[in-house]
Amino acid sequence: MNSSGNETPSMNTSDFDAVETPALLLDTARMDRNIERMRARISRHGVCFRPHVKTNKCMEVTQRLLDAGARGITVSTLREAEYFSAQGIHDILYAVCLSPNKLAHALRLRQSGVKLSVIIDNVEMARQLNPQGLTGDARLEVLIEIDSDGHRSGVQPGSAELLAIAQALQSQGLEVAGVMTHAGDSYNCRSLDGIRALAEQERAAAVLAADRLRAAGYGCQVVSVGSTPTALFAENLAGVTEVRAGVFVFFDLVMAGLGVCSIDDIAVSVLATVIGHQQEKGWTLIDAGWMAMSRDRGTSKQALDQVYGVVCSADGLPLQDLLMVDANQEHGIIARRPGSSAGAPPFLPIGSQVRILPNHACATAAQFPCYQTLDGGQQLLATWQRFYGW
Amino acid sequence: MNSSGNETPSMNTSDFDAVETPALLLDTARMDRNIERMRARISRHGVCFRPHVKTNKCMEVTQRLLDAGARGITVSTLREAEYFSAQGIHDILYAVCLSPNKLAHALRLRQSGVKLSVIIDNVEMARQLNPQGLTGDARLEVLIEIDSDGHRSGVQPGSAELLAIAQALQSQGLEVAGVMTHAGDSYNCRSLDGIRALAEQERAAAVLAADRLRAAGYGCQVVSVGSTPTALFAENLAGVTEVRAGVFVFFDLVMAGLGVCSIDDIAVSVLATVIGHQQEKGWTLIDAGWMAMSRDRGTSKQALDQVYGVVCSADGLPLQDLLMVDANQEHGIIARRPGSSAGAPPFLPIGSQVRILPNHACATAAQFPCYQTLDGGQQLLATWQRFYGW
Repeated sequence: MNSSGNETPSMNTSDFDAVETPALLLDTARMDRNIERMRARISRHGVCFRPHVKTNKCMEVTQRLLDAGARGITVSTLREAEYFSAQGIHDILYAVCLSPNKLAHALRLRQSGVKLSVIIDNVEMARQLNPQGLTGDARLEVLIEIDSDGHRSGVQPGSAELLAIAQALQSQGLEVAGVMTHAGDSYNCRSLDGIRALAEQERAAAVLAADRLRAAGYGCQVVSVGSTPTALFAENLAGVTEVRAGVFVFFDLVMAGLGVCSIDDIAVSVLATVIGHQQEKGWTLIDAGWMAMSRDRGTSKQALDQVYGVVCSADGLPLQDLLMVDANQEHGIIARRPGSSAGAPPFLPIGSQVRILPNHACATAAQFPCYQTLDGGQQLLATWQRFYGW
Repeated sequence: MNSSGNETPSMNTSDFDAVETPALLLDTARMDRNIERMRARISRHGVCFRPHVKTNKCMEVTQRLLDAGARGITVSTLREAEYFSAQGIHDILYAVCLSPNKLAHALRLRQSGVKLSVIIDNVEMARQLNPQGLTGDARLEVLIEIDSDGHRSGVQPGSAELLAIAQALQSQGLEVAGVMTHAGDSYNCRSLDGIRALAEQERAAAVLAADRLRAAGYGCQVVSVGSTPTALFAENLAGVTEVRAGVFVFFDLVMAGLGVCSIDDIAVSVLATVIGHQQEKGWTLIDAGWMAMSRDRGTSKQALDQVYGVVCSADGLPLQDLLMVDANQEHGIIARRPGSSAGAPPFLPIGSQVRILPNHACATAAQFPCYQTLDGGQQLLATWQRFYGW
């Protein structure tokens, strides 16, 4: 595709014509490739794989992760834990610090037979983990969250508070099942070397915390780390027992901007239909707005701002310098990237379809009740349900 | 509330303790006041009220609008049209330009007895409105969208294309039912005088288009205008037959920033629970992230940036200069507004609850499957379902 070429997307009739837009497309060929890449990487380190299913919230996608060797899953809500345990997954880490108003729910899940692990990062909460019902097989597994990069939550691995939390747990009759950390700052790295360095920092923080806890006499069997960038680029995972990651399943423009994947790896896109033009402005209007794409503008902090998304033809090829440059609730505006030398935008006729690649797969997918799957081509294969809410 | 006072939110037990967070609260006392304000304003002009239900996507809320005299509704998706027609509402304007792949669905709705109006803004689509099935009672009502402020879609009211679209409709055997416009640029006004001027610009554009169509022999009965700011501040609606608006039902921080409402008018908020602290940074962590608030940062373009939202105590009073300053998927970070002179943030104990007022009610409410209603206090009254998707 070049600036002098004919960029009008192919108008071949396809299954897409029968789909009411906007629709969330999932290319399972790309997804399977992405999963295999992560599987191979983690298996090289000889650690367990506990993928984060907050990105997909879908049993069919999660099944592919289990098929690739995942041992247990990570969730971001108890609603996810409920859903996936009902689907037969019984080893679940709830990776947001537990609060008192969720304890009863967590215990119900535990008592229904789910090996539910929870995390805490402070003494206050450790003291509120009422031991009633927390003995024997019904005991919650409690991990201590470690702050490895100043990104959000967690206790410092070298701090006195780490041991105070372990002590508070012990006084509640609870063991320290392990430590976990998430190097969320990896999304802000400027280079792959920066990601590699952060992966080592993440590992070192978790291992330091585990070593200190063990030296003080606590069990600490689990050492859990992970984020998509650090999981893919970590060179050494000595001392780590499991890796978590979620967005790698689909990838997105933020990951492509980091250099963690290529544009061609992005497995989810939003199918949209052209509904109008403002020719003198170079605008094409489509029926996908922020309700479909989400308001996520993660690439705005990167070297290449993709605004609301990269515009592709219906068969999935990026159209040169064409971006979704603005969004209302159900309207998207497509135009050339600011400063583009590619000339006037191609004329996309009313009714023609485009695909928009998202900034952040977790946020965009969350706007849809289902995925429409395809296997590389334009033939729709299946509808896979997602869920939402808490 | 002042900087030296005790800002710790009241820790009274309330119904909130039984709610798993995050949860979307809807204060119906505020909502009813907001609806009455709009009703009184529109009734003063003697025009019809066709509220936009894309904000609420909920029958109970929409019923309050009907009770306040709404004649028909405006929708942003055919899914909304399906839902509300199944609930007995049969006068519906679908206010996004129709595309060929939605025509069959629109016709099905029409043939089921819904008086469905659709909009178009170009000759291409007018020519694709196949007249088969479009005669007599099963005929779609077609309005032409007018561009009154350069915001997104619509044809210029003084253009030759306006008449060409009418001609193309006529050649399909279709009447021109009317014109509609949306002054979406009202969200970017800098003053109430600016909103008043834009309201007049919106009215004048719609009336000019209607006058030109009538002079050319077309019917053009409907002259439809609206956005929450212009609907509330229009001083003259001569020539207009109906007003649309949606977000006024709940209001939000963007509307407060425009001066269209006060903070005390905002009827929706997200109830969240404190899950941790990073004391040296002045951070309080809560269990509401961008999945709950949405990524909408509408106030970032205003004089006062409220970041991800204004933090209130559980009983709904803003806590001085306390904002949700960052968001991960299920984590929110609360801190003082940058530059605040209010000193260290109040200590909000683990398990205590706060309410976050949203930038954009449409975007935040869309993240939740239901509203938890209350009537001014902290007693939860009912759960009202929302729907989502297309």
